[in-house]
Amino acid sequence: MYGGKIEVIPKAPITRFDDFAIWYTPGVAEPCRRIHKAGDDASFDYTWRWNTVAVVSDGTRVLGLGSIGPAAGLPVMEGKCLLFKYLGGVDCVPIVINERDPDKIIYIVKALESSFGGINLEDIESPKCFYILEKLQETLNIPVWHDDQQGTALVTIAGLLNALKIVDKKINQVKIVLFGAGAANICIYRYLKVIGADPKKIITIDSKGVIHRDRDDIEVMKKENPWKYSIAMESNAENVKTIEDSFKGADVVIAASKPGPGVIKKEWIKLMNKDPIVFAEANPIPEIWPWEAKEAGARIVATGRSDFPNQINNSLGFPAIFRGAFTVRARKMSDEMFVAAAYAVAKYTEETGIHEERIIGAMDEMELYVREAVAVAEKAMELGYARRHLSRSELESEIRELIEKPKKYMKLLVENNFIKLYPEYRDLKA
Amino acid sequence: MYGGKIEVIPKAPITRFDDFAIWYTPGVAEPCRRIHKAGDDASFDYTWRWNTVAVVSDGTRVLGLGSIGPAAGLPVMEGKCLLFKYLGGVDCVPIVINERDPDKIIYIVKALESSFGGINLEDIESPKCFYILEKLQETLNIPVWHDDQQGTALVTIAGLLNALKIVDKKINQVKIVLFGAGAANICIYRYLKVIGADPKKIITIDSKGVIHRDRDDIEVMKKENPWKYSIAMESNAENVKTIEDSFKGADVVIAASKPGPGVIKKEWIKLMNKDPIVFAEANPIPEIWPWEAKEAGARIVATGRSDFPNQINNSLGFPAIFRGAFTVRARKMSDEMFVAAAYAVAKYTEETGIHEERIIGAMDEMELYVREAVAVAEKAMELGYARRHLSRSELESEIRELIEKPKKYMKLLVENNFIKLYPEYRDLKA
Repeated sequence: MYGGKIEVIPKAPITRFDDFAIWYTPGVAEPCRRIHKAGDDASFDYTWRWNTVAVVSDGTRVLGLGSIGPAAGLPVMEGKCLLFKYLGGVDCVPIVINERDPDKIIYIVKALESSFGGINLEDIESPKCFYILEKLQETLNIPVWHDDQQGTALVTIAGLLNALKIVDKKINQVKIVLFGAGAANICIYRYLKVIGADPKKIITIDSKGVIHRDRDDIEVMKKENPWKYSIAMESNAENVKTIEDSFKGADVVIAASKPGPGVIKKEWIKLMNKDPIVFAEANPIPEIWPWEAKEAGARIVATGRSDFPNQINNSLGFPAIFRGAFTVRARKMSDEMFVAAAYAVAKYTEETGIHEERIIGAMDEMELYVREAVAVAEKAMELGYARRHLSRSELESEIRELIEKPKKYMKLLVENNFIKLYPEYRDLKA
Repeated sequence: MYGGKIEVIPKAPITRFDDFAIWYTPGVAEPCRRIHKAGDDASFDYTWRWNTVAVVSDGTRVLGLGSIGPAAGLPVMEGKCLLFKYLGGVDCVPIVINERDPDKIIYIVKALESSFGGINLEDIESPKCFYILEKLQETLNIPVWHDDQQGTALVTIAGLLNALKIVDKKINQVKIVLFGAGAANICIYRYLKVIGADPKKIITIDSKGVIHRDRDDIEVMKKENPWKYSIAMESNAENVKTIEDSFKGADVVIAASKPGPGVIKKEWIKLMNKDPIVFAEANPIPEIWPWEAKEAGARIVATGRSDFPNQINNSLGFPAIFRGAFTVRARKMSDEMFVAAAYAVAKYTEETGIHEERIIGAMDEMELYVREAVAVAEKAMELGYARRHLSRSELESEIRELIEKPKKYMKLLVENNFIKLYPEYRDLKA
């Protein structure tokens, strides 16, 4: 009905036809010359590049639908672009790639680098996604992010920080079960260490059971999924081998595995320590229904869904991450920046009131995004990744304006009937 | 000042935060499933792909600036996107590629196919550009266009058709000099044949002189530029070898070579037949100043510039070409479609009045674009390239609405100060 979810529009004025002589030939030759002379970084000054991210996917792991290919994955990438702009004021282009070989994907994205200010990898299967992310982060001179890893991890960590405050436990003392060892949990494992969790007290469970050093497939794992292998080597100090033993005495379980219900059993929750914290993030149905987890004794339950409390929603992450990185024209993104973002989200939520059913803010809390983006920008400057330096108050005002603007645009376009509110649009699937 | 010339905005409504559940997860899974089931073509129904072109360049021949690289070429590609939307209602993404090898460029563009509804190649050096265009046209299932070849050719042909009417000469009888043998003139040569010109009466001149069968470099040409070689074999039946002999008795000269003045001499124009028609298309300065050509006897002079009459302006071509092709979701673009477009442009201009100083319409004649786009769409349907079939009146009304809309958008955004008219913006170069 809408023929897609996004469009490209001019943001420079055209009030008479002579204006094209400014924006196109002959006027456009001047910025070209300046970039050619000053170096590629100058393209951030003279083009939309400074504010533009490509959402890149090969369509191999789209939502819960699996490997449906690039064309069928395009609606997700386009939807992501809608969120990027509306929530973060970030311009965004959906790019689906008809190529599955990781080195070729890396080659293609690298060849496109000068077109964009950042890359958001999306819905690329694991473990390939780890390799692609690492290589691109090494190679490119712009921020690269894989939302299925880092977005989920960031928001989970933010929620966990507040959940621990509520139950009055310290991150370095808790026992944590990571249920599922895909893109999200492998990244969450890394972030947990950054915020001070003790890897010895983390136990990870994949589709074959508990990950421990004596697993039959440990050599295969070493070769095919070194990220998982290093978890096997480093965590689970007691070398626990059953799911029951993993849950026994655990303070936190973070599940990012497969849709439930019944994937996590009530009995397992009952084995946990006092005041269990349960993140059951699978979509569309969490690994365990929140009420079941509660019945089994969970004190705090978070899911991926908006119809339960404590939604672990990636949309709280990527728009502000890129808003912050782009505002200072960061060359890189690093775990320190994401963890700074998680702390900012947690702190904002705490300041506006936390309790068992609100460990993390929601999408309509615009100020959360501003605070998060400022934290990211400041960390980028601190780490020496920024091409541009601003004071806190400059950051805040620029970022707030860019985050507010798309909402004002939307209002204007809807009020003037440029975007039509067909009565049936809320029943749409396209 | 504007931080670039284009931006991406939502075109689907967001009036409450729950709307994201339609446009993103979980709602977005449904169009993904449908495309996966129905095949890639269904992505035209469920995403912005149907209306989106990528402007692709490797930065090897940017304007008259030469090979300045992808980042420095980006402002041109972005400016092109502004024109695509404002004039044709076509969504457009600037893509610069950091790769010069033609086969690798082809590989990359092919890998991106599912992201876009069409490809506009731009500012890629010759003769590589011919090879890339041909291969992509063969391989991709979406329209591919190289504006430096086909755009210039289309608009030149449209102007020529009317110029010949004014001097009352027939295309199959005229002697034509093509001055310059780059992207534009090699394509113009081909189009001239399609509209009925006699190749025997066409003489082409490149930087080394007249192209004839006895040239020293004929074997090198055969290997390195087979497009030029086939012109050498087929045209210039009299095997003329000097520029003077080429111009002698010529009815038309079409120059697309290097900036003047003085590249074409007055003396040469004087050698031409009665009522000479002179296209001097180099930018920023034509191969011969219009007044010099006139002094030497030219009856009709066209240039690439907006400050002289008869501007041969690519912007009269590509926006409507893609508007027409996209409206019927064409799988291919072919010379027949472009020639149909040229005839439509010529006819519209004729109907609205032609004379020596108006052989072709101007950018502000919106109806020209509508007529041209309809002609392209109808030809695509006739040739079996269309994925979608519409009646003439449906075509006209859809196309007119899509071409009008960006102008209304611009007005709304300027009036509401979303696009600010900084007093100095007309002095800008960025």
